[in-house]
Amino acid sequence: MKLIFEKTELVRAVNTVQKAVSVRTTMEILQCILIDAKGSSIFFAGNDLDLGIQTGVTGEIVEKGAVALNAKTFSELVKKLPEDQITFEVNENNLCHLTCDKKSFEIPGLSADEFSYLPEIEKENSVTLSQNALKDIINQTIFSLSVNDVNVMMTGELFEIKEGNLKVVALDSHRISIRNIPVDEKDRNIKVVIPGKSLKEISGILESDTEKEVHIYFSERHVLFEFDDTRVVSRLLEGNYFNVNQMISNDHATQIVLNRKQLIDSIDILMVLIQESDKRPVIMDIKDNVMDIYVKTGKGYGIESVDIKKTGADIKIGFNPKFIIEALKVIEDEEVTISFVNPKSPCFIKDDEDTYLYLILPVNFTED
Amino acid sequence: MKLIFEKTELVRAVNTVQKAVSVRTTMEILQCILIDAKGSSIFFAGNDLDLGIQTGVTGEIVEKGAVALNAKTFSELVKKLPEDQITFEVNENNLCHLTCDKKSFEIPGLSADEFSYLPEIEKENSVTLSQNALKDIINQTIFSLSVNDVNVMMTGELFEIKEGNLKVVALDSHRISIRNIPVDEKDRNIKVVIPGKSLKEISGILESDTEKEVHIYFSERHVLFEFDDTRVVSRLLEGNYFNVNQMISNDHATQIVLNRKQLIDSIDILMVLIQESDKRPVIMDIKDNVMDIYVKTGKGYGIESVDIKKTGADIKIGFNPKFIIEALKVIEDEEVTISFVNPKSPCFIKDDEDTYLYLILPVNFTED
Repeated sequence: MKLIFEKTELVRAVNTVQKAVSVRTTMEILQCILIDAKGSSIFFAGNDLDLGIQTGVTGEIVEKGAVALNAKTFSELVKKLPEDQITFEVNENNLCHLTCDKKSFEIPGLSADEFSYLPEIEKENSVTLSQNALKDIINQTIFSLSVNDVNVMMTGELFEIKEGNLKVVALDSHRISIRNIPVDEKDRNIKVVIPGKSLKEISGILESDTEKEVHIYFSERHVLFEFDDTRVVSRLLEGNYFNVNQMISNDHATQIVLNRKQLIDSIDILMVLIQESDKRPVIMDIKDNVMDIYVKTGKGYGIESVDIKKTGADIKIGFNPKFIIEALKVIEDEEVTISFVNPKSPCFIKDDEDTYLYLILPVNFTED
Repeated sequence: MKLIFEKTELVRAVNTVQKAVSVRTTMEILQCILIDAKGSSIFFAGNDLDLGIQTGVTGEIVEKGAVALNAKTFSELVKKLPEDQITFEVNENNLCHLTCDKKSFEIPGLSADEFSYLPEIEKENSVTLSQNALKDIINQTIFSLSVNDVNVMMTGELFEIKEGNLKVVALDSHRISIRNIPVDEKDRNIKVVIPGKSLKEISGILESDTEKEVHIYFSERHVLFEFDDTRVVSRLLEGNYFNVNQMISNDHATQIVLNRKQLIDSIDILMVLIQESDKRPVIMDIKDNVMDIYVKTGKGYGIESVDIKKTGADIKIGFNPKFIIEALKVIEDEEVTISFVNPKSPCFIKDDEDTYLYLILPVNFTED
C-alpha cells in the first residue's frame, strides 16, 4: 500500500476516529486505527466494539491496501509532523513507513483482517437534524447521567421519537434532564437508550457552528450517526427505560421567576464555602419578591438576597448547588421559572414551550 | 478593623502572597493570609517559614487592625466577587465580615498575633537587576534542579556574585545549567544557595515585560527580593555547593553548529517513540555536515538527517532527549554550538560570550 496525505487532513481524520479507540485494553488490535484504501477511496476507522467511528480521508492512492496502526503512536507522530505532504507506505509484513520532509519513521502495524469493521446498519428508521442541534441537545442533558452506576440504564440517554418530536432524557438518582426538539419523522415511534460515553464522543466531533445535517438511523441493537464523510455506530443499551412521566408533576405550591445568570453567580460563590466532604446544601428561603440564598459551613457563612417574582406560598428548601448550577448553565433563557411543591419534593426548572425540563431533588437540612 | 478595597487590587494582592502559603500543613495559621492595617497602610502577607511574601495593598482604612484568614477560602471568594467595592470588617473575635454588592460573607479568622511576620533583613549586601532579567535567569536554569533529591543542595540554585557578574547554577546528577549576567555590585563577593521552590514562586510573581527593578539583599540565612510594593524573603540552603568549575572542561574533540529550532523539532517528534519506562536514548550520529538523529524502540524507528557545520572527529553519542530539549528551549539564539569529547563524556551547549553553559551527560546504548 502507498498513500499520500496532507498533514491537516491526516490530523482531522485521526482526531475523529481516535475517539472510538479503546485506551484501556490489552488487545492490541483494539488500540489501533484502521487505514483502509482497498477500494477507490481511503477511510480511517476506530472501533472499541461499543462505539465505532469511520471517516473518509482525502489522499492519493498510489497503491491499494489496508493496515491497522497503534492509534496513540500514529496520532502523536502525525500531530508533530511538519505541515507538508506525508507519504505512507506499508509492506507485506504490515511495517508502515512514514516520510515527511527529512523525517522518516517505521512503525509496526497489524493486519487489517484482524480489525473489526463497523457493522452495517439498515437505513430504514431515520431522523435528520442539524449537527448543531444534536450537539446542543446532548450537552444540555448528558451531565445528569451516572458515570458508573450499578443501574446501567442511568449511564445512557433515552432518545424517544414520537409525533415529530425527539425527546432526550438523562437521569441519575437525584435529577432528570429532558430536552425536546421537533424532527422530520412523523410516522414511526422510536425509543432507544444510547450509552452516554458514545454520545459524549459524538458530541466531540460534531461541529457546533454548522447547520449541516446529521442523519440518525436506528436498528434493533445499534444507532448510526452519519454526517459529513463520517459514520458513527454505537451499541444501544438493552432494557426498559424509567417511566419518566410518572416522576413529573405539573402541580406546584410556589413558583418563582428570576434572572438565570444572577442565580448562577450567587450559587457559584456560595460553593466556595462547601467542602466536597461535608455536602452542605445551599438553602433558598423564598418570600414575596425576594429570595435569600445562603449556606453555612465550617468555612463560614454566605448569603445573598436575590430579586424574584413569586406566586404561591413561601418556602424554604435546600439543594445540592452543583445540580442547580449544572441545569442553569445549559439553559439559554435570560429568565428561568422554578416550581416547588414542598421542601421534600423535587423542584422543576422548565419553560412554557416544553423545550426543557430539569427536575432536581432537594436535600434535607437542619438549622442550628 | 474596617477596610474598603477594589476587587482587582484584592485579587492581585491575594495571588501574590498566596504563593507563600503552605498547602500541606495541619497548622491552621500557616494556611492563612495576614491582612495588616495596624499602621498607616495596608499589607497582606503569606509565610510558610521557608518563604515569606508581603505586598502593599491599596485600600481605604476606616478602622485599623489586623487578622489572619484562611488563604484558600479568602482567595476563592475574592476571585468570584463582582467587580465592585469590597468592604471588609473584622470584630474582636476575628470574625471577618465581607460584603460586596448584595453578597455578604462571614469567615472565621485567627489572631494576627499568631502569624509569623517576615524576618527583617539588613539591607547591606545587595544587587539590582530588572524583574525581566531575574525572571529569565531563573526560568533558564530551574528545570535542571532535582525536585526531591536526597542531596539537598541539588534542590537549590547557586547565586554567585563576583566581579560585577551574577552566575546562577542549577544541577542534578545528569546535567548542569549555568547563566551569567552582569550586575552593579563590584566590590563584594556573595555566594548563596536559594531553594528552587522559592525561586519558582518568585519567578511567578515577577513581571516578564517590565524593565522595573528588583533589589536583592543577602543576609547570612536569608535572601530578600524587593520589587514594586512587594517583599519576598526566602530561607537559604546551608552547606557547601558543588565545585562546578571542576566539572567543566574546555577541551573537545568534536564541535557542531546547527539550527536550534530544527533540532528541537527533530528530537520532539522522536520522543513519541520513547516510553517513560524504557528510557531509550536519542542517538546523534555526527559526520561531516550532517547528523543523523534517530531512536529505535518497541514502538518503532524514527530518523532525521539534520544539516550541521562540524569541526573535529566523527562521533556517535546517545542522550536522554528531555535533557537536550529542556536546555535548547531556554536558549534564544537561532544557532547553537554543541561540543563533544567522547561518547562517555558530557556534551556542552554554550555560547562564546559565556552567557550560558548547559552540560548534559550522555546515555550508554547498544545497537542491535
